[in-house]
Amino acid sequence: MPENPIAPAALEEEEKESYMDYNWDQPGSPPGTLRIDEDAQPTTLYLIDYSEHEIMETDLATPEDCIPYLDKVSVSWVDVRGLGSEKVLHSLGKVFTLHPLVLEDVVNVPQRPKIEPYIDQLVLITRMILPDKEGFRTEQVSFILGQYYLLTVQEDIGDCFDVVRRRLQANVGVIRRQQADYLAYVLLDALIDGFFPVLEQYGEQIQQLEDEVLQNPSREIVQQVYQLKRNLLTLRRAIWPLRDAINTLIRDEHPLISAEVRVYLRDCYDHTIQVLDMVETYRELAASLMDVYLSAVSNRMNEVMKTLTIISTIFIPLTFVVGVYGMNFDNSPLNMPELHWYWGYPTVWGFMIILAVGLVYYFWKRGWFENWAQPPKDE
Amino acid sequence: MPENPIAPAALEEEEKESYMDYNWDQPGSPPGTLRIDEDAQPTTLYLIDYSEHEIMETDLATPEDCIPYLDKVSVSWVDVRGLGSEKVLHSLGKVFTLHPLVLEDVVNVPQRPKIEPYIDQLVLITRMILPDKEGFRTEQVSFILGQYYLLTVQEDIGDCFDVVRRRLQANVGVIRRQQADYLAYVLLDALIDGFFPVLEQYGEQIQQLEDEVLQNPSREIVQQVYQLKRNLLTLRRAIWPLRDAINTLIRDEHPLISAEVRVYLRDCYDHTIQVLDMVETYRELAASLMDVYLSAVSNRMNEVMKTLTIISTIFIPLTFVVGVYGMNFDNSPLNMPELHWYWGYPTVWGFMIILAVGLVYYFWKRGWFENWAQPPKDE
Amino acid sequence: MPENPIAPAALEEEEKESYMDYNWDQPGSPPGTLRIDEDAQPTTLYLIDYSEHEIMETDLATPEDCIPYLDKVSVSWVDVRGLGSEKVLHSLGKVFTLHPLVLEDVVNVPQRPKIEPYIDQLVLITRMILPDKEGFRTEQVSFILGQYYLLTVQEDIGDCFDVVRRRLQANVGVIRRQQADYLAYVLLDALIDGFFPVLEQYGEQIQQLEDEVLQNPSREIVQQVYQLKRNLLTLRRAIWPLRDAINTLIRDEHPLISAEVRVYLRDCYDHTIQVLDMVETYRELAASLMDVYLSAVSNRMNEVMKTLTIISTIFIPLTFVVGVYGMNFDNSPLNMPELHWYWGYPTVWGFMIILAVGLVYYFWKRGWFENWAQPPKDE
Amino acid sequence: MPENPIAPAALEEEEKESYMDYNWDQPGSPPGTLRIDEDAQPTTLYLIDYSEHEIMETDLATPEDCIPYLDKVSVSWVDVRGLGSEKVLHSLGKVFTLHPLVLEDVVNVPQRPKIEPYIDQLVLITRMILPDKEGFRTEQVSFILGQYYLLTVQEDIGDCFDVVRRRLQANVGVIRRQQADYLAYVLLDALIDGFFPVLEQYGEQIQQLEDEVLQNPSREIVQQVYQLKRNLLTLRRAIWPLRDAINTLIRDEHPLISAEVRVYLRDCYDHTIQVLDMVETYRELAASLMDVYLSAVSNRMNEVMKTLTIISTIFIPLTFVVGVYGMNFDNSPLNMPELHWYWGYPTVWGFMIILAVGLVYYFWKRGWFENWAQPPKDE
Amino acid sequence: MPENPIAPAALEEEEKESYMDYNWDQPGSPPGTLRIDEDAQPTTLYLIDYSEHEIMETDLATPEDCIPYLDKVSVSWVDVRGLGSEKVLHSLGKVFTLHPLVLEDVVNVPQRPKIEPYIDQLVLITRMILPDKEGFRTEQVSFILGQYYLLTVQEDIGDCFDVVRRRLQANVGVIRRQQADYLAYVLLDALIDGFFPVLEQYGEQIQQLEDEVLQNPSREIVQQVYQLKRNLLTLRRAIWPLRDAINTLIRDEHPLISAEVRVYLRDCYDHTIQVLDMVETYRELAASLMDVYLSAVSNRMNEVMKTLTIISTIFIPLTFVVGVYGMNFDNSPLNMPELHWYWGYPTVWGFMIILAVGLVYYFWKRGWFENWAQPPKDE
Repeated sequence: MPENPIAPAALEEEEKESYMDYNWDQPGSPPGTLRIDEDAQPTTLYLIDYSEHEIMETDLATPEDCIPYLDKVSVSWVDVRGLGSEKVLHSLGKVFTLHPLVLEDVVNVPQRPKIEPYIDQLVLITRMILPDKEGFRTEQVSFILGQYYLLTVQEDIGDCFDVVRRRLQANVGVIRRQQADYLAYVLLDALIDGFFPVLEQYGEQIQQLEDEVLQNPSREIVQQVYQLKRNLLTLRRAIWPLRDAINTLIRDEHPLISAEVRVYLRDCYDHTIQVLDMVETYRELAASLMDVYLSAVSNRMNEVMKTLTIISTIFIPLTFVVGVYGMNFDNSPLNMPELHWYWGYPTVWGFMIILAVGLVYYFWKRGWFENWAQPPKDE
Repeated sequence: MPENPIAPAALEEEEKESYMDYNWDQPGSPPGTLRIDEDAQPTTLYLIDYSEHEIMETDLATPEDCIPYLDKVSVSWVDVRGLGSEKVLHSLGKVFTLHPLVLEDVVNVPQRPKIEPYIDQLVLITRMILPDKEGFRTEQVSFILGQYYLLTVQEDIGDCFDVVRRRLQANVGVIRRQQADYLAYVLLDALIDGFFPVLEQYGEQIQQLEDEVLQNPSREIVQQVYQLKRNLLTLRRAIWPLRDAINTLIRDEHPLISAEVRVYLRDCYDHTIQVLDMVETYRELAASLMDVYLSAVSNRMNEVMKTLTIISTIFIPLTFVVGVYGMNFDNSPLNMPELHWYWGYPTVWGFMIILAVGLVYYFWKRGWFENWAQPPKDE
Repeated sequence: MPENPIAPAALEEEEKESYMDYNWDQPGSPPGTLRIDEDAQPTTLYLIDYSEHEIMETDLATPEDCIPYLDKVSVSWVDVRGLGSEKVLHSLGKVFTLHPLVLEDVVNVPQRPKIEPYIDQLVLITRMILPDKEGFRTEQVSFILGQYYLLTVQEDIGDCFDVVRRRLQANVGVIRRQQADYLAYVLLDALIDGFFPVLEQYGEQIQQLEDEVLQNPSREIVQQVYQLKRNLLTLRRAIWPLRDAINTLIRDEHPLISAEVRVYLRDCYDHTIQVLDMVETYRELAASLMDVYLSAVSNRMNEVMKTLTIISTIFIPLTFVVGVYGMNFDNSPLNMPELHWYWGYPTVWGFMIILAVGLVYYFWKRGWFENWAQPPKDE
Repeated sequence: MPENPIAPAALEEEEKESYMDYNWDQPGSPPGTLRIDEDAQPTTLYLIDYSEHEIMETDLATPEDCIPYLDKVSVSWVDVRGLGSEKVLHSLGKVFTLHPLVLEDVVNVPQRPKIEPYIDQLVLITRMILPDKEGFRTEQVSFILGQYYLLTVQEDIGDCFDVVRRRLQANVGVIRRQQADYLAYVLLDALIDGFFPVLEQYGEQIQQLEDEVLQNPSREIVQQVYQLKRNLLTLRRAIWPLRDAINTLIRDEHPLISAEVRVYLRDCYDHTIQVLDMVETYRELAASLMDVYLSAVSNRMNEVMKTLTIISTIFIPLTFVVGVYGMNFDNSPLNMPELHWYWGYPTVWGFMIILAVGLVYYFWKRGWFENWAQPPKDE
Repeated sequence: MPENPIAPAALEEEEKESYMDYNWDQPGSPPGTLRIDEDAQPTTLYLIDYSEHEIMETDLATPEDCIPYLDKVSVSWVDVRGLGSEKVLHSLGKVFTLHPLVLEDVVNVPQRPKIEPYIDQLVLITRMILPDKEGFRTEQVSFILGQYYLLTVQEDIGDCFDVVRRRLQANVGVIRRQQADYLAYVLLDALIDGFFPVLEQYGEQIQQLEDEVLQNPSREIVQQVYQLKRNLLTLRRAIWPLRDAINTLIRDEHPLISAEVRVYLRDCYDHTIQVLDMVETYRELAASLMDVYLSAVSNRMNEVMKTLTIISTIFIPLTFVVGVYGMNFDNSPLNMPELHWYWGYPTVWGFMIILAVGLVYYFWKRGWFENWAQPPKDE
């Protein structure tokens, strides 16, 4: 199935992830304890500082390097990638005066998507969906929005924000004239739009499964429907709390979000609802597919049983008949005189043919040949 | 099935649409980017300008042509059809001072139905259902209501508003004495009423499926029930958010909607609830039909198995009996002396007939012949 | 089944109705357009005008005839039956100054039950359930409550209000001392009480289906459970919005409803909840019955299969054995010497009996005879 | 099953009750009409009048006899049992100035549990669960709480309040120092606690059904699970509205309930939630049990089919082989020369044994003997 | 299955507990009656009294011994373990001035998790999950938070608080500088974190069941899925009310909880939601697993039936053919002349081989060999 990159390897990949999404702290560890995964990539920082007329991009060696930019009226987007360097992350917390719990949520991935308003910061935890060579993977992106800066922390290298970076560089649209809250909106919008290609592929997968289940129901379909259901559960778990978070953002006015950006966020909100809508629709379709599959299996069993019954019902009585004439009774005149008739043998055959034709007619009358005549594969 | 225009071709058509209703923006594209489909029809504009005593209808070449009419006290209904001309749509946005996101929602179809209040405009996105040669199709209609004008933007040529146009021309009822909000109500009402014929056809299809499933359950029923479920999901997705939108319109007083029209909107609201009511009822009936089908398949299997069992159970022991007398034992006096009796052969037949009758009687006592005697087709 | 008047013919009747409950207006028709059904009965009017000490009943030729009574302090109950006379209905609208939409809702049956408060009128649309010769039918009753009058509009001749009329005539209880709102309550109460006999019959039907499904599951049960489910859906659609309407009536104080009558309406509200309670309970029982039926079908299949398997498994090996001795091998000393033994034949029989008894014992040990010994009918 | 007093007779008993819980008034009967059941027990009255230092108990001949006690500062508990004496009940209504609808609700059992606040009275309708010789039965208990009195009306003789009476007599705890509202709480608490033993028995029944369904699934289990579901529905219908009623009592402060007693009522509320929690859990377990049962039936069918298939697949080809050698072909040299070989017969046997062993090996490889070797009963 | 410590013994253990979680009071017993279980461990008390610079730990003989510490500004954590000593518990109630109902809830385990605010105390009832030698067990922990003290009452010896005690002793983090409310948060956090390891093991169990059900569906899977569902129900019952309790704690400001700690409690709240999220996801997966299992059973049955049908359908007609040539007809020229042909016997074999190959080809065309060729075990 090379035309559907979600299936099999991708599923295999996501399988590993979907079971225990949430890593837990060692019970009893103090709040703010960072849990650094050994496989995590080293932390790097990238700064884009822009105003309407200027833009500057640079790698940062340490979080402290961005301090000079934060106070400037220009918008500073500090993009942190990789959660492998505990020291860097701690000093990041200090530079941006993050609450210990916020730092913990940002670093100890995965967390449930949520919004947390602080007095001079707005923290939004989300999940980003990304294509990779085996299909798709998700990673956590945290947004920390301040007055003049936006700090984004990504679990891994690689994101769906390149288009935004190009718009910043090329000064496309109004983005360079807007504040940090608009930048946050644009990134969030790009992140949510990233769910749609995945959904489209699931839609295609469902369509393909439908064709298969109606024409040639094989055992693999059950497995694929099951994995589809599980992946949809994972998607729903990612997007449902995000919807709530954005709704909270729109409803509860926060000084860091301007009225204008709030209008744009309504658009984001609509998109999350669209994603949820489709996830729910796909879940209902997947459940229905299972029903269709089971009915196809039943039908197939029915067809098998009918074949057996027709053959057995025709030949078992005939075998009895020929068995009768195989009995070794003496030549008493009462014993099967037809054995000695001239037309005896053809008469028996005639009788047997009438019996067989009668049974076939009976089955035909009861409609047993109806759905059974054409092989199910070419339907 | 020529009497049911929804089935097969129509389903085929809707199938294509129902999987990925929502087209998505290229992730990261700036808000307000218009996505023009290559197959979209060129945009045309049609103006109806009316007051109680006058009415004027004209095609417009460009959106700018309608500017003189917008300020007049008369009601101007600007009807835009087709989303293929990007330039026209952009200038439309300028003439009506549409928010970039509104223009995006109007053009980048399909969107989820919704209401968006702006200070001097009210934007309502809906889906219209339309009969076509293969059954039905849906398209997006956007209403932008201003003080003295109503702008409607349709995805395609062809709508269900002709009756309203005729009422305007013929000055039937109060429509010409009312403002633009009343016109919006009348169009919305016509749009919602358009769902009922589709529902009626689904109702007839369910009735037909019921008859089939109870009398002659064939394999195609599963497919039809599945497609019915999917179509009902699509309908529900169209009408559910519309209900919420209209409810918001009634509850949150907006200066552009007069108290009188709000009373009429309650009627629209009732109709959307009726549509939803029926969609839900049909969904429950479709789910029940699936159960009935599965039980019919089980019953049919039961019938097949009974046939096999009755025939086998009667003839297998008899075949054993005749096999016994086919054995080539010597003429030892202990070896089947009945082979040499005068009445031996009839005795064996007598024994076999008693055995067969006994088994038939046993099956009859257990009620195996009950539901099985009459063929299921003529039930 | 003469003891259950709901079943078959009644279901047949309701079947026709339940699919497309809602008639729809021709899309685009102006609000207030009356849709007169050709089969509708001609409209007749009947007036009961009463105060504590006087009562007067009369047929009215035209709606205008009741004008003199409406202003009097006595309570006037104008009962309109049949929706066939468009002119009479229009003049009814004028006499009672009905809003065009109200008149439309009253005439264009069926509507969803609802309450609509107007300044000097309270409009309540309900469905009444009525026994008829084939079981039950429902019709729409609209209540329009004014200060001194109650207008009721019934879809058809025949209602459940005779007991109320008799109470009015006989001056039983407090009814003649009360205002029009109390009359409306009394009629509504009678209408809701009319649901209980239907529910009781459904309860009896469920009980009967339970007995059948546990003792003798036949194919008709599926059909009956399906129709039961559909009828319960219809009932729920009639009573659910009525519950909401009455709740609104109790919660939102309206000047036309006195505090005293509001206490009585709480009683009506309780009754609608009881009806809903039972409808939901019956729906869950019906769903469970379907499960029980399916398990009964499975059990029956199991029983059939066991019969087949026991007979086949015993006789097929035996048939093989006798087949062995039917082979025509030469008299080589290695070829079946037992054919020539004196005790050969009895030995073979002994061997076959031991084989058969062993298999029966084996099946008995595995418990195959347990649920199978007694015929299911006499359980 | 003597260790489970709920099953069978008890179920039989409850069966009668659970279908049509609600008796309905003759449609159209005036509010306040009492419906006296012919089988109802004659009404008796019992008074307990107590203060901290005194207690007096007496039977009352008529309701009027309790008037002297009602005004006293001491708490008067008037306990009415049996709903068979219409006259007594009417005079009870007069003595306690009950609203006609209250008297109707109290007498026309069963009603939905509810709370109704009146200015100087608080009416609470509940259902009490009582062990009886066949398991359990429910009856209605109504509480009418006044300033200095508590009137309880029980449908039948026999209640779960004896412990409370003993606490009153023995002056245990604070009960004699408290007002009537505390007495109402104590009785309500005793009534709710009465649900737990029933739940425990259902819990034991589920445990027993689990064991049976996993080890020896018999046909009776379906019936038992079905009846369990029905009984749980009945319980839920009794306790769900009671929960709402108590919640209303806690939330809406009523002058007759002191703040202290309100704290105690929170405890009652917790208990009703616990009962509901368990009812819901049991319902989910019952639904799962049904699934487990169906899978057990399928497995059993599988086992039966495997037995049949293994035996048939081994012996049918062998029977064919021996049939071949039973054919009466002439002694042409091409015709079965093995019939005349010295080792012909053993060779054929060798071939058949190899065939049979090969098939057994094939089935063993495919795992058909796995779950099938041990009989399911001893699992 | 030594790698999965939940299964089987653990399930066995929890089984006993999950049926009747709630012990009930003897109906009618006065509020505040303590129910001492005979098997309960004797009550012991342990005090940790700390401030930023000092810490003191000691066993207490009687509750009265802690009185001197309660008034001090230092934080006193009184940890009570075991509910076996009625006298100690009563005097505990007196020392901490517990409301009789609070003492009852604390002692009469298990209770539903809940929060109860009192004026100078905050009572929180929770369930703690603990690993034990057979898997996991749950016990009740009650928190009573005062101004300067925290009283915790545990059902049993053994808890998950050792890490907190070590942090207190080692003065790790800010815990020693904080008040009693922070201590309560830290303990609650440790308790909630204790759910995650259990969930992870269920996740692993689901993964293992998935592999089994797709590759080698055995009968034990049903039992394991059923027990998994039941355990998840138990977990949900423990965590769902806890979520509500914590939410209440955050929303309703209580003077004993500082604003700072309220921020930390939001983190606890997030964790309970994560636990619930996973429980719900696992429940849906378990339900899907059941479906997959049932389809696997059906497929297996199909495979069995196909084997039977293919073998029977090939050999039954062949057996008939050889039976024909075993008939003892006279040598009339019409009677099976092929018996006397030179090539007769090979001709018959040729015919039979063509018949068999034809049938096999027919089955192959219909796709019967597709999913059936490879044994399901090695899939």
